Amino acid sequence: MEHSAAHRPTIGITMGDPAGIGPEVIVKALADPKLRSRAQYVIYGMNELLAYAADLAEINPYWYRVQHDSPRTAPSAFPFTHDVVVMDYDEYSLLGQTVHRPSRQGGEASLAFIRDAIAAAMRPSGTPGRLDAIVTAPVCKESWAMAGERRYPGHTELFQAHTHAKRSVMMFVSPRLRVALATIHEPLMSVGNKLSIGRVYDPIDLGHHALVQLGIPQPRIAVCGLNPHASENGLFGWEERQVISPAIAMAREQNIDAHGPFPADTIFIDALKDKWDLVVAMYHDQGLIPVKLAAFDDAVNMTLGLPIIRTSVDHGTAFDIVGKNSANSAPMKAAIELALRMCG
Amino acid sequence: MEHSAAHRPTIGITMGDPAGIGPEVIVKALADPKLRSRAQYVIYGMNELLAYAADLAEINPYWYRVQHDSPRTAPSAFPFTHDVVVMDYDEYSLLGQTVHRPSRQGGEASLAFIRDAIAAAMRPSGTPGRLDAIVTAPVCKESWAMAGERRYPGHTELFQAHTHAKRSVMMFVSPRLRVALATIHEPLMSVGNKLSIGRVYDPIDLGHHALVQLGIPQPRIAVCGLNPHASENGLFGWEERQVISPAIAMAREQNIDAHGPFPADTIFIDALKDKWDLVVAMYHDQGLIPVKLAAFDDAVNMTLGLPIIRTSVDHGTAFDIVGKNSANSAPMKAAIELALRMCG
Repeated sequence: MEHSAAHRPTIGITMGDPAGIGPEVIVKALADPKLRSRAQYVIYGMNELLAYAADLAEINPYWYRVQHDSPRTAPSAFPFTHDVVVMDYDEYSLLGQTVHRPSRQGGEASLAFIRDAIAAAMRPSGTPGRLDAIVTAPVCKESWAMAGERRYPGHTELFQAHTHAKRSVMMFVSPRLRVALATIHEPLMSVGNKLSIGRVYDPIDLGHHALVQLGIPQPRIAVCGLNPHASENGLFGWEERQVISPAIAMAREQNIDAHGPFPADTIFIDALKDKWDLVVAMYHDQGLIPVKLAAFDDAVNMTLGLPIIRTSVDHGTAFDIVGKNSANSAPMKAAIELALRMCG
Repeated sequence: MEHSAAHRPTIGITMGDPAGIGPEVIVKALADPKLRSRAQYVIYGMNELLAYAADLAEINPYWYRVQHDSPRTAPSAFPFTHDVVVMDYDEYSLLGQTVHRPSRQGGEASLAFIRDAIAAAMRPSGTPGRLDAIVTAPVCKESWAMAGERRYPGHTELFQAHTHAKRSVMMFVSPRLRVALATIHEPLMSVGNKLSIGRVYDPIDLGHHALVQLGIPQPRIAVCGLNPHASENGLFGWEERQVISPAIAMAREQNIDAHGPFPADTIFIDALKDKWDLVVAMYHDQGLIPVKLAAFDDAVNMTLGLPIIRTSVDHGTAFDIVGKNSANSAPMKAAIELALRMCG
C-alpha cells in the first residue's frame, strides 16, 4: 500500500446499483478538477448513466470511455493517460427505464462492478491496471437477491469474502466522530454469542492502525460496554468483565491507548467533544445511531482488515430522487478523499 | 389527576442524595418567582444544604422550613400559606462534610425523601397534604446499597414498587425529541426474553396518553426495531415480526397512530425533523444514546404508568462539582415545568 511520490494513486469507483443515485454522485464528485488532479480514477459502471447525469447537472463530460471487456482495457494497456476512465458495462443498459427500483439487472451489474474492481485491486503492487483503493457507491440488496446473490448482508461481507480476508471491521469516519464496530449484521440477541475477546480486539487494533495511517500517532480509543451503564460492574450483564475488559487489556499490552468499557449512552458525547479519536461499538445500532445523528451527511464507511483499501458512501440508493439532479455528492467526495488519505 | 382552576397544584421535590448537586439545582430552579407562583412546592430534604447552596448562589432564602416529623407537618396542617415549604430531615445532617461521595447516610436520607413524598402523593385527591406530582433530584445507587437497599436499579423501579403499579415506562421528554423505552435496566442479551407484545405495547399506549395529556391530540409514534435495519424482513432476527409488529397492530386497533418497526439508526433523525412526536425504543441504549446526543441538557425523565405523576432530571449527582455553585439548574426547571404541564 505504499506509493512513490512520483505516482498518483489509481482509485477504482464502483457505480453501485445503476438505478440508484450512484451515477449522479460520482459524476458530480469528480467534476471537481482538484480532486481529479490528485489521482487517476477508474469508474466501474455504465457510460450512458454517467452521461445522462452529467447532462442534467450541466457538467461537461470529463472522462474517457472504454469497453470493460475489450482488449484495450487489458491490464497491459494501463496506465491510461486520462484522469478519469469509465470502464463501461453497456450490456446492462437501462436506457428508457424511467422507474427506479430494485431489479435483477441492477443486481447483476452492481455485482460485476465490484467483482472486477476487487480483482484489479488484488493485483500485486506495481502491476499495470492495479487499483490502489476502491470507493463504492450504494448497492441494493434486493437487487442482489433478484440476481441470485443472497450470501452477503452488505458490501463489507462481500469484500471480506472476495479478498479472502480473515477478519474485517466496519469503521465510520467523519470530521466529528469515528466509530468502529465489533459486530455488524447480526440479530441483536446473537451479539452476545458472537462477541469474543478477539472479536472485540479486532476493531480496537485495526481502528488504531487505520488512524495511525491517517496521521494520528497515538489514537485515544474508547470502547463501549454492551449492557446499560456498561453493566455497572456486573449488575446488568457479564460481557464487560469477561470479554470486553480482557480485549482492552490485550490492546493495551500492544501499546494501544484503549480505555473502557464505558456506558454507551454518554461516551459519544465525549467523543464529539474530542476527548476520543475513536469509539468502538459492540453492535450495529450502538454505533450507527450516533454516527447518523452526529454526522449524517459526511460519514464515510470504510472496511478495515482487508488486503485492499475500501471506502464507501454511507447512504443508500435513494431510488426516489434519481433523475432529479438533487443528490448530494458531498458524501462521495468525502469517501474519495478518505481513500486518497489512506493511499497517501 | 384533575384540578380545579382555582387551586394551584402541589409539587413535591425530593432532594436526592444530599451530597450531590440536588440542593443546589433545587434552590436555583425555584429562585424563579414565576415558577414559584404557579404551584405550591414541598421540598423533601435538608434545610442546611439548601441554605448553604442559596448562600453560595447569593439567593435570599424564599422558603419556610418545617421539621418533617413534627406535629405541624401533619397532613391536617396543609395547606401552608408559603409557596415553598422545606420538609426538613435534619437528622441526616452533613454539616462539616466537605468530601462529596456515596454514603450510607446519603442513601438513607434519599430513600426517606422518596418514601415520604410517595406516601403524600398516594393520598386521595383532595386530601390535605396530598402532592399532585413528584419531581426527583438525582440519587446515588452506591449510597442506596450502603444503606442496604439493593432491590432497585433506579428511581423508576422504586417508584413502581412503592406505588404498587403493574407497569411502568420510562419516557424522556425534550423540546426536540421524546423517547419511551420498552425495557430499561436489563442485560442486553435478556432483552429478547423480556420483550413481549404487552411489553412493547405499554410504552406505545402510555406514551400516547401522556402526550395527549401534554396537548398533542393524535401523537405520531414511531416504534424501533430490535435488530439492525429492523431485521430487513427477518434477515437478522425475528422479534420485529413476532413481537413488535403485533404490538403496533394492537395499538392501531386502539386508534393510536403507531408505525414501524423502523431501523433505529435513522428513525431518530426523522424524529428530530419533527416527523414523529414519540419514538419507542426497545432497550436502554437504543433510546438513551439519541436522547443524550440530541438533548443532553434539557431532557426530562418521566415515569408513566404510575398512579402518580413523577418527573426527574436526567443527570447524576455530579459529586465532583458540589459546592462550587456551578451546577446548571435548567434540567430541574424543565422537570418542574413538565410536572406542572402534566398536572394542568
